[in-house]
Parts: sequence; structure tokens; C-alpha cells
Amino acid sequence: MDKQQNIAILGLGLMGASLALGLKKRGFSGRIIGYARREETRVQALENGVVDEVFADPSEAVREADIVVICVPIWTIAKLAAQIVPALKPGSVVTDVGSTKSELLKTMQPLFKHSAAHFVGSHPIAGSEKTGIEAGDPDLYQGRLTVVCPSEGAPEISKIWQAVGSEVIEMSPEAHDAMLASTSHLPHMVAGALARSVADGDPAKKADFCGTGFKDTTRVASGSADMWVDIIDTNRAALEAELDRFHEELQGLIKILRGGNGDDIRRWLEEASAARNQILKLNRFLKR
Amino acid sequence: MDKQQNIAILGLGLMGASLALGLKKRGFSGRIIGYARREETRVQALENGVVDEVFADPSEAVREADIVVICVPIWTIAKLAAQIVPALKPGSVVTDVGSTKSELLKTMQPLFKHSAAHFVGSHPIAGSEKTGIEAGDPDLYQGRLTVVCPSEGAPEISKIWQAVGSEVIEMSPEAHDAMLASTSHLPHMVAGALARSVADGDPAKKADFCGTGFKDTTRVASGSADMWVDIIDTNRAALEAELDRFHEELQGLIKILRGGNGDDIRRWLEEASAARNQILKLNRFLKR
Repeated sequence: MDKQQNIAILGLGLMGASLALGLKKRGFSGRIIGYARREETRVQALENGVVDEVFADPSEAVREADIVVICVPIWTIAKLAAQIVPALKPGSVVTDVGSTKSELLKTMQPLFKHSAAHFVGSHPIAGSEKTGIEAGDPDLYQGRLTVVCPSEGAPEISKIWQAVGSEVIEMSPEAHDAMLASTSHLPHMVAGALARSVADGDPAKKADFCGTGFKDTTRVASGSADMWVDIIDTNRAALEAELDRFHEELQGLIKILRGGNGDDIRRWLEEASAARNQILKLNRFLKR
Repeated sequence: MDKQQNIAILGLGLMGASLALGLKKRGFSGRIIGYARREETRVQALENGVVDEVFADPSEAVREADIVVICVPIWTIAKLAAQIVPALKPGSVVTDVGSTKSELLKTMQPLFKHSAAHFVGSHPIAGSEKTGIEAGDPDLYQGRLTVVCPSEGAPEISKIWQAVGSEVIEMSPEAHDAMLASTSHLPHMVAGALARSVADGDPAKKADFCGTGFKDTTRVASGSADMWVDIIDTNRAALEAELDRFHEELQGLIKILRGGNGDDIRRWLEEASAARNQILKLNRFLKR
């Protein structure tokens, strides 16, 4: 990363603020220019030194930027990109942090077709159920994995994520979306369906009988609906395939409940436990 | 609770050791007599002062006990009970800590029919994924809810759970099993099916893309298979009904994936989040 570059960060919530703070903490000496829709966020961003400058107009924010990182929900990324394209510096590279890539890249292609700037899809696999600029954490991306989609400008974008401590992997948008449908989006949908299912009936009576198992298994269902609406909306086919696969696992269990014996139940449970342990053991990025 | 009573605790794992330590911490001055199958556990139980006496034969352990608490997996409770019935003191009361009650009570009725001792079903809603005597925690039952099934001897058993800080609710075995099928057993099965589903395919490739969402949503799937086999085996009909209800929630989502718009997705997610928040808000026992 050229430390004299200027970087514009559009959206100063958890992801954007963490990127700005992470760059500052690691000695980035170029200008960090922010854009935030809400005035309150702009004031906070300057007062707390999250950014060097902040604008209420995204086009103003990107005018002198070499790198632009859009840190908002997926469909808002597309809207912001349409606004800023005419203002982008020739040769500048724009990226995002969205959790799905295929639909977004399809929307981006015509926007950048006649531009001298480039768009590169990114997805840092890092986050928190906390939201907003106050949740900004300079180490959010440290030791995490970031997917970058191959295209012109990808090396410049990879350097930004590496600069905040992330390991970068290149992956096509389609492969990314199919992978994350299983490893991230499926757990989210399952947690939501479980919360709905347990609260169904008489929640006031049921509440006291919920233990830490319910609490942890449904935790992600409390995450930002603004963010998740767009993720699900833009990954429908892959999600349906993953729900089918999950449904087959449940059907296997129902078959055992109907006609299996204790050994069948034990085998199902032990395989589930082994599956989880295998994933956690092979994963290089989750703190254990 | 009469502090001069003798209590026998059969099984000195997490639940049994925590009960013994909890009673001692709160000034119980009767004798605490343990039974453990493994010699290593018996040695540890004495060395660490978990119990006052320990036996390798459950009948020896219960001979002078006024209260007997059986802290092992459900089908093992039934086996131990069959062994100890002839040795029980007239008027003594036996209970357990199993997570299902109907099947167990059906098994217990003939055993205690001609005995001068009584059996009362208990289920303290407390636990941990940790196991064994080392995991014993004097405060495991503090501030938690314990279900006691109404029958002769229930007041004596309720006093034991209250003595270690638990709030007691009386509930029929059938109502208990239907309730816990939703609030506890369903989350366990869903977590297991999710772990199996995500590890399906190429786990070595998928592992790095699993984040904290996967980790938390599947946490309980790493719990003791020994304990869970019997829970599932003894609550099949209620579990199938809960899996049906859960399946309907997933079907609602699949319908939205196929033909719904962003507003439909948002509504589904917001209802899921509200469902979880409602349960956590109404629950009086989960530490928030």
C-alpha cells in the first residue's frame, strides 16, 4: 500500500469506522476522507479522529481519492456507486464490504463500463452484532479472512485489507456466494427460524424455560435487519439450495425419531459434534 | 430442608458434584454420601471434599439416606433406581435431574409401587457443555429454575433445590416434556443439523469461511452425546411436533425466497429478531 494514497470511506458504521481506525493505528499516512449520511455521525467521526475530513455528499468525498471503500448494505452500495462514478479520479479503484458479490457485480458492470475507474468486489469476513460508529474497532479485520474478486485493481484493494491485518483470498463472485450461503447465511436463517419457532404459541409462558442453548443458538437473529435483507435478497438461489441440504439433515433425524433406536440417535449426535469440531479445528481465523 | 438429613448423590459429574458443592457452600450439615462408577471419580470426590463418604455400590450409598438424587443420563437413572430400591430407607425420597420426565416416571412407577420410599421427578434447568467432577460449580443452580413433578415427597425435593438457590415450579411430566421439546431440545437438534449441513461437501475448504455466527449457532452440538441420546430417545413425539413447527417457519422463508420482495424478507427477519428479544426479555433466569 502506498502510504501517500488518499482513501475515501463511504459509510462510517461498524465496518467503515473499523477500517479507518485500523489504517490509522497501522501508520497509514495518506488522507482518510469520510462520507456519512447522518450529521451526527459526521460530527462524531471528526471529533473522535476516525477520519481526517468528512462530507455530506459522497461525490465530494471521492473527488481526490485513489481508493474508495463503500461500507453500507448491498443495495445502498449500488446506489452510492451510481452517484459517485462521475466524480471518480481516473485510475482510482472502488471496492465494498458486502456479504454477497454476484448480484452487486452485475449491477456495477454497466456503471463502470465507460469510467476510467475500476470496481473490485471485497468481503471481509469479520463483524459483530454491534452497529454504528461507536462500535468501530481498529482490530476488527486483524487475523481475519477477506475475499477479493479478481479484476483490474484487485492488487490495490488486497493491499488495503492486508494493511489492516487481514489475509486475502481471491475468489469468483459465484464461488463466494455459494460458499457463504452455507457457512454464514444458512446459520443466520436457521437462527431466525428457531427464534420464531420457539416464540410461537405462548412466549410469555415459554420464556422461563429457555436456557443458554436457546440464547446462543439464536444470537445472530438479533443482527442488523438492514444488512441482512440485502444479503438474502441477493443470494436467493444459493440459499434455497442450502435450505434444501439442511432440510435433508432434519429429515434424516425425523426418520430416526420415527423408527430408529438409541444407537441411531447416538450416531446422528456424534456425527453432528464431529462435524462442528472438524470445522473449528480446520478454521484458521476463528479465535478458539 | 432439615439440615440433619443425609443426602445420597448418585453420579458425581457436573450435575451431581455441583449439587454436593452447592449444599456444602450453603451450610448443609447433614452427611453427603456419593456414588460414582469410576474409581478415579471416587478418589477425586473425597480428596476435594465434594462428598463426605463415597461408595462403589449405589445400594451402599443410599442405605442411610433420607434424600437420594440420581445425577446420570435418563436410562441410567432407571437402571440405578432398580438397583437401589431394595436398599432404600422407608420414607426416603428419590429424585433425578433428567431433561425428560414422562418416560422415566412410567418406568419408575412399578419399581416404587411396593416400596416404602417415593420417587419424585426433577429437572433443574441449568448446565454447561463442560462435563465431569472437575466442572462441579457450587453456584450452578443459583438463580435458575427447577421443575419438580407433583407427587408424594415433592415438598422435600423442592427444599433441596431451593437450598442450592433454585426457584422451583411444579409441572406435570407431560407438560414439562412438551415445553422443553420447544425451548431446549429443538435448539439442540437444529444446532446439530446445522453443523452436519455446513460440514457436508468439502469441510476442509469450507472451514475458513465459517465465522462466529456458525460457531455460536452450533455450540450446543458439542454437548455430551451420552446425555442427549436419552433425552431424544424419551421425547420423540414432542420433538417431531417441534420439528414440524420449525419446518413450517423454514417453508415460510423458502416461499419468500421464491416469490417475495425485500419487504417480505425484512418482515421475516424483524419478526425473528423480535421473537428472540421477547423471549430474552420475559425470561427471569438467563443472565443478560
